Amino acid sequence: MNVKIFDTPEVQDFLTAVSGFDQAGGNDRAKQIMHRLLSDLYRLIDDFDVTPEEYWATVNLLNELGAEKQVGLLSPGLGFDHYLDMRMDAADEQARLDGGTPRTIEGPLYVAGAPVAEGEARMDDGSDTDAEVMWLTGQVRDTAGQPIPGAQVEIWHADSKGNYSFFDPSQSDYNLRRTILADAEGRYRVRSIIPSGYGVPPESPTDQVLSALGRHGQRPAHIHYFVSAPGHKHLTTQINLAGDAYTFDDFAFATREELVIEGTRIEDAAEVAKRGLEGPFTEVVFDVELAPTEARELQDRHKRPRALEQA
Amino acid sequence: MNVKIFDTPEVQDFLTAVSGFDQAGGNDRAKQIMHRLLSDLYRLIDDFDVTPEEYWATVNLLNELGAEKQVGLLSPGLGFDHYLDMRMDAADEQARLDGGTPRTIEGPLYVAGAPVAEGEARMDDGSDTDAEVMWLTGQVRDTAGQPIPGAQVEIWHADSKGNYSFFDPSQSDYNLRRTILADAEGRYRVRSIIPSGYGVPPESPTDQVLSALGRHGQRPAHIHYFVSAPGHKHLTTQINLAGDAYTFDDFAFATREELVIEGTRIEDAAEVAKRGLEGPFTEVVFDVELAPTEARELQDRHKRPRALEQA
Repeated sequence: MNVKIFDTPEVQDFLTAVSGFDQAGGNDRAKQIMHRLLSDLYRLIDDFDVTPEEYWATVNLLNELGAEKQVGLLSPGLGFDHYLDMRMDAADEQARLDGGTPRTIEGPLYVAGAPVAEGEARMDDGSDTDAEVMWLTGQVRDTAGQPIPGAQVEIWHADSKGNYSFFDPSQSDYNLRRTILADAEGRYRVRSIIPSGYGVPPESPTDQVLSALGRHGQRPAHIHYFVSAPGHKHLTTQINLAGDAYTFDDFAFATREELVIEGTRIEDAAEVAKRGLEGPFTEVVFDVELAPTEARELQDRHKRPRALEQA
Repeated sequence: MNVKIFDTPEVQDFLTAVSGFDQAGGNDRAKQIMHRLLSDLYRLIDDFDVTPEEYWATVNLLNELGAEKQVGLLSPGLGFDHYLDMRMDAADEQARLDGGTPRTIEGPLYVAGAPVAEGEARMDDGSDTDAEVMWLTGQVRDTAGQPIPGAQVEIWHADSKGNYSFFDPSQSDYNLRRTILADAEGRYRVRSIIPSGYGVPPESPTDQVLSALGRHGQRPAHIHYFVSAPGHKHLTTQINLAGDAYTFDDFAFATREELVIEGTRIEDAAEVAKRGLEGPFTEVVFDVELAPTEARELQDRHKRPRALEQA
């Protein structure tokens, strides 16, 4: 129909009322942000001549996204998670807090409360017998190269089918989720299994949005980390295992060159025996450097609502 | 932290990729609208220095809204429904299709498939014994004042507690929902009960958003209508019963002066007997004028996904 009403006094007055500017209560920042958000969306509707059918199909899609708890899955697909990372990178640079291992997105599948181990742990429950054993080790250091004993290394990853414990009810609780406290040399060692990448559920609301954009919903094989130590900036990151078809085509835009790790297949019987294994395995080494900071609020992960922590 | 990165080439290139501009498949309009939407949202995050905590609390709220199917409830609270009405009003005026009874918002609680009656119907199932009887009548005419026999009048409203059948499982199916085909004089007559207004569920995600804006979530007592007839513009509207505390303070912004109706309390025994009632009742008269149109697509309600029709 191509009418433009956004700039009329009626619409502008209406936006003021909707945003609660004429109400004494509420939160000023919420009102300001809502006014801006609604102004942007109303103008978009005008400029693109969005039809009621299109509008209500979108409302319906948002209901479906929420009903399947997929807003946090679509979010990285629409680049928000990486955009927040870009902003934090820029802020770090401005505050001269950069350096150390690069951050990348957390994703929606962290679960708090994993078992804690000193120095080393086995992460898999042994049930995924098709999977290749992964021997994952590394050292946590500061940006001057000094080891950080006792650094807390939280690791979580998918199984060989691309599924995560808790979200995949067929897995045991906390399978492939561990917290390791680094040893006196800042080192951690875990035995686990090589994870697979995964895709968003076909035909799901998230998949519908990506399809409308001509995009896929696949992620390469990756391993999530939270690494922290007193006096150092908390790090949220992931590594990608090199060689995956989607390593540089991740729908969640999490890949960073510095975080792509080449695993080493080890078949030598002496090496296998040394680790108490029964056959060939893949060794993955990921050393982490944390930037120093005195700022207490930068030493913990931010307070995002997370699975189980919400209950 | 107050960094500004939106206008950097990195962010602009990223937005192009996220919106699927470099992908052959997908839908061009979806890509264009997504690019605009994400640009607006990314810029908002930059301008308001939105923190990860604020961002993830919003993601969580969207999940909760969807899980409770409340996006269609929050939508009128954020003025979208009324804004779409304002746009349709402006388009009608531009196309000289205005005139007739004013439209107002549909709301999220219509259910298709109500029983159909000729000329008159009883809408309530008799179970709401506290409620005042409502004798609701009117004539459907064209804008030249000529009656429209056979016009289809769909009416739905809440009970005396402000609840709707289907959404309130304690009510019988289609209680307070009927379709009446106007008689030879274009008239419809229903016996029903006076509805109450209602509020959004306390502490619900919708309530949380409105509270942050210092706003309430109350609606005045109202009655929904769809009115249609071949050769005439489909009308979606509501009437408000005058005297409600929220008549001119509706959280959903649906009230229009022309749609506020004063009921008449009738206690005269002869009038009571004439209608086959047992005591005083309230008469509400709402005549409807439909504007003529040859355009077929204007003669039906738009294809919003609706309850039961989605199944």
